[in-house]
Amino acid sequence: MPISKIPDATIKRLSLYNKQLRRLVDENIDIVRSKELADLLSLTSTQVRKDLSYFGKFGRRKKGYDVKLLLSSLCKILGVASDNRIALFGAGNLGRALLGYKGFSERGFCIEAIFDADPEKIGKNFFGKICMPVSDAEKILGEKDIKIAIIAVPDDAVDSVVDIVVRSGVKSILNFTPRRLQVNNDVMVRSVDFTDKLEQLSYFSRHPMDNK
Amino acid sequence: MPISKIPDATIKRLSLYNKQLRRLVDENIDIVRSKELADLLSLTSTQVRKDLSYFGKFGRRKKGYDVKLLLSSLCKILGVASDNRIALFGAGNLGRALLGYKGFSERGFCIEAIFDADPEKIGKNFFGKICMPVSDAEKILGEKDIKIAIIAVPDDAVDSVVDIVVRSGVKSILNFTPRRLQVNNDVMVRSVDFTDKLEQLSYFSRHPMDNK
Repeated sequence: MPISKIPDATIKRLSLYNKQLRRLVDENIDIVRSKELADLLSLTSTQVRKDLSYFGKFGRRKKGYDVKLLLSSLCKILGVASDNRIALFGAGNLGRALLGYKGFSERGFCIEAIFDADPEKIGKNFFGKICMPVSDAEKILGEKDIKIAIIAVPDDAVDSVVDIVVRSGVKSILNFTPRRLQVNNDVMVRSVDFTDKLEQLSYFSRHPMDNK
Repeated sequence: MPISKIPDATIKRLSLYNKQLRRLVDENIDIVRSKELADLLSLTSTQVRKDLSYFGKFGRRKKGYDVKLLLSSLCKILGVASDNRIALFGAGNLGRALLGYKGFSERGFCIEAIFDADPEKIGKNFFGKICMPVSDAEKILGEKDIKIAIIAVPDDAVDSVVDIVVRSGVKSILNFTPRRLQVNNDVMVRSVDFTDKLEQLSYFSRHPMDNK
């Protein structure tokens, strides 16, 4: 199966498998069965086996998966261990929070360039990187071979920044704005929506768990 | 079925249904079939019908669901339309970004109290709220009837803040730190992990889509 035909939903689940596998490694668990992995993620074991089968043979029937081997294979598939060159647009509160976010570097992601339109921010050093003007972004994204753009700009700047990112050939965007981005089909957007999880918590705060 | 027995995974999906329903409303679509909703979320239609059946009868066989009715019912179930009193711990870059995040207020969430341990921040006004000392939090959480706590503090402050939150009786925590929180079973934690989606993008930046 050509790699571009792997369902989007499977790719989403890969990073969830990854997270569970990291926990199992932390807990010194060596082998995991598809049923156990499925239970951890509220999926069926058929689904788990199907998802993983897209990428090769990881487990043996009735033997389960080698946790570390599966984790390292998934990391390789996701490209986590590789060179992930990221540009950040927006050096406001959120942008600076992302620059300082330890989770990124711990998992091999590195922000290589920062852009802002505010003359007060341009030229300033944030976490060791000099903030550059958005007007230079198209040139710099190419020079630095940036693969992923993070968008953390105010609402009214979103469209023009996305235009620049797409024009410069970057195909992956992590969107931190509440806006839905309009891009061509060959550009992949993932949005971090802070409100989704608040909705779930809102439910639980009304229906406390007794013995879960 | 007692409400506390509804699977966690179903509650998670409710906010995803909600998001799709909002899109359909934006696109002036009145009726949606379980199959269509399932396709939008890469689920089976049986799963969709099962999830929604926990909360009552929303659709008619072969007729589909009334989009607006379903959306407003799910909002009510999630408690989104209700009074969601939230406290924010941590007025650093991330905390201030969350205070200014429009997505919260647009969907009925309001941060009622801000706490920080830094004397430089205490007493300051952030987005119309005065930052209070963490040492007063236990008292104030009760007084203000806070239901949800957002944790956006540095790593070394996480444990003590979670202790305070839990002691004060708040049962829902939105965790923005890369740390895994250790809490009792009666406390619901949701973590916003910025790295998951970067991993997915990392995959796509290596395997560009041709014609998706």
